Amino acid sequence: MSLLTVGTVAFDSIETPYGKADRIVGGAATYISWAASYFVNDIKLCSVIGDDFPEAELNALRERGVSLDGLQVKAGEKSFFWSGRYHSNMNSRDTLVTDLNVLADFDPVLPESYKDAEYVMLGNLTPEVQMKVIQQMTKRPKLIVLDTMNFWMDVALDSLKAVIKEIDVLTINDEEARQLSGEYSLVKAARVIRAMGPKYLVIKKGEHGALLFHGENVFFAPALPLEEVFDPTGAGDTFAGGFIGYLAKSGDLSFENMKRAVMYGSVLASCTVEKFGIEKIKELDQAEITARAKRFSELIRVDF
Amino acid sequence: MSLLTVGTVAFDSIETPYGKADRIVGGAATYISWAASYFVNDIKLCSVIGDDFPEAELNALRERGVSLDGLQVKAGEKSFFWSGRYHSNMNSRDTLVTDLNVLADFDPVLPESYKDAEYVMLGNLTPEVQMKVIQQMTKRPKLIVLDTMNFWMDVALDSLKAVIKEIDVLTINDEEARQLSGEYSLVKAARVIRAMGPKYLVIKKGEHGALLFHGENVFFAPALPLEEVFDPTGAGDTFAGGFIGYLAKSGDLSFENMKRAVMYGSVLASCTVEKFGIEKIKELDQAEITARAKRFSELIRVDF
Repeated sequence: MSLLTVGTVAFDSIETPYGKADRIVGGAATYISWAASYFVNDIKLCSVIGDDFPEAELNALRERGVSLDGLQVKAGEKSFFWSGRYHSNMNSRDTLVTDLNVLADFDPVLPESYKDAEYVMLGNLTPEVQMKVIQQMTKRPKLIVLDTMNFWMDVALDSLKAVIKEIDVLTINDEEARQLSGEYSLVKAARVIRAMGPKYLVIKKGEHGALLFHGENVFFAPALPLEEVFDPTGAGDTFAGGFIGYLAKSGDLSFENMKRAVMYGSVLASCTVEKFGIEKIKELDQAEITARAKRFSELIRVDF
Repeated sequence: MSLLTVGTVAFDSIETPYGKADRIVGGAATYISWAASYFVNDIKLCSVIGDDFPEAELNALRERGVSLDGLQVKAGEKSFFWSGRYHSNMNSRDTLVTDLNVLADFDPVLPESYKDAEYVMLGNLTPEVQMKVIQQMTKRPKLIVLDTMNFWMDVALDSLKAVIKEIDVLTINDEEARQLSGEYSLVKAARVIRAMGPKYLVIKKGEHGALLFHGENVFFAPALPLEEVFDPTGAGDTFAGGFIGYLAKSGDLSFENMKRAVMYGSVLASCTVEKFGIEKIKELDQAEITARAKRFSELIRVDF
């Protein structure tokens, strides 16, 4: 099944208690594509970069079955750059630099071959860009998943609500769910948010796992307790890529299968945070994914 | 199987965003006994109160199979009193008043009939009192579980470490595990803490569930997403009571059964927080516990 993703393709400079990584490749669409590529090999990436982006990284994506026909390359301009420093507990971070560069006036234009994709992953980006992607689809995709963050709730709430109305699954973290709904209880927050449009809501809680809400059903996915979280950057994007990649592969949108997709998203995210940037998500193989999936399964196995 | 518990029997005044409750019955041993009473009816309570404690509350415990032979009643003195105010997110609270009263010079004296109990639950109290209880046992219990809090790590770390050395299961929350071990990663923290003595470690994470560590095994128990957390007071004590009560009933100390015990502790704790104080834990019945256990089971059920 074909999977279209929009999101940033960017450079990140990251400081964590374990070290520094300078101008490494990152961006939501990069993580999403890598994660999804372990499930499907018909991925269409829509984004924008400058002419400073390493060709080898683009070729590595192409080799994973990712089409870059929708990746705009702006001559003489620079790619999006983000720099941040994580605090010692890894749960919070300071943004040091945000250089929008090519992203400032990004107008997503879908090639014809992208417009009938059955699965659409709208990575974290301005809600206006996410909406423009939906509007270019020639038929309603089987599934539209949207990831966003508190920043857009602060500066573009109306546009965000407009695009949320058009989607099937929203993925946000617990604080964002509380902010978007105005409810502290996540059960109540889920009800308010689902009334905004999406049938499914995934609340990501980092080291505490994730919750999947649908109707009156709830599923609690664990997170793998790790020796070290080396770099949390991209964990949410990796989760999203694994989640929609698994759904696109299986073609099954039942609640039972959504639960498995949440587990696979969590499995891949637990890999990403073990190394800097996309280093770990680039080097996985099926055996490692299967072994880690087994650890997740063991983690919650109880005859109860 | 007989279960001995030591802990406070007290009055609490509680303020939450949902209201105030003035001088209601509380205390670790009260919650532990009520929770455990749904599994076993041979419970021996060791604590101290003043002559201000309502006889009806004591009789209610007796009717649940709780022996109060080891409950000292100090004529002319007052019971332990704690008063606190929860913040709007319910995750943090301010202590307003702590009147030790009878607790100030509590010397736990076990009646002869208590000294061969097979299961011992050392509720949160000074480590010295917890140690004195262990020292009076005439034979090594099958299982000793200890609950404690950061306060004792701050003011009585050596005594705490001495008693931790003698026990089988330690239950603390995630911040306390980090404080006690000096490790941020809970996997590393668990290793450090288990090297201090206990074979099993339960890390309680409130709304995020609980982790059970044993050797290289980990179990991730969910928490039930609730409409409202009305009053978190006693949730940890209720968890401990349900946990050891289930183990005492089943008599099975395997890791597989410990997992079930963590689930039952979580089930009962999820009840306690739905009403003020011990109101909810007093009125449960088997049908309600079974129905809620089913919800916990559904919450993590995935064919993965």
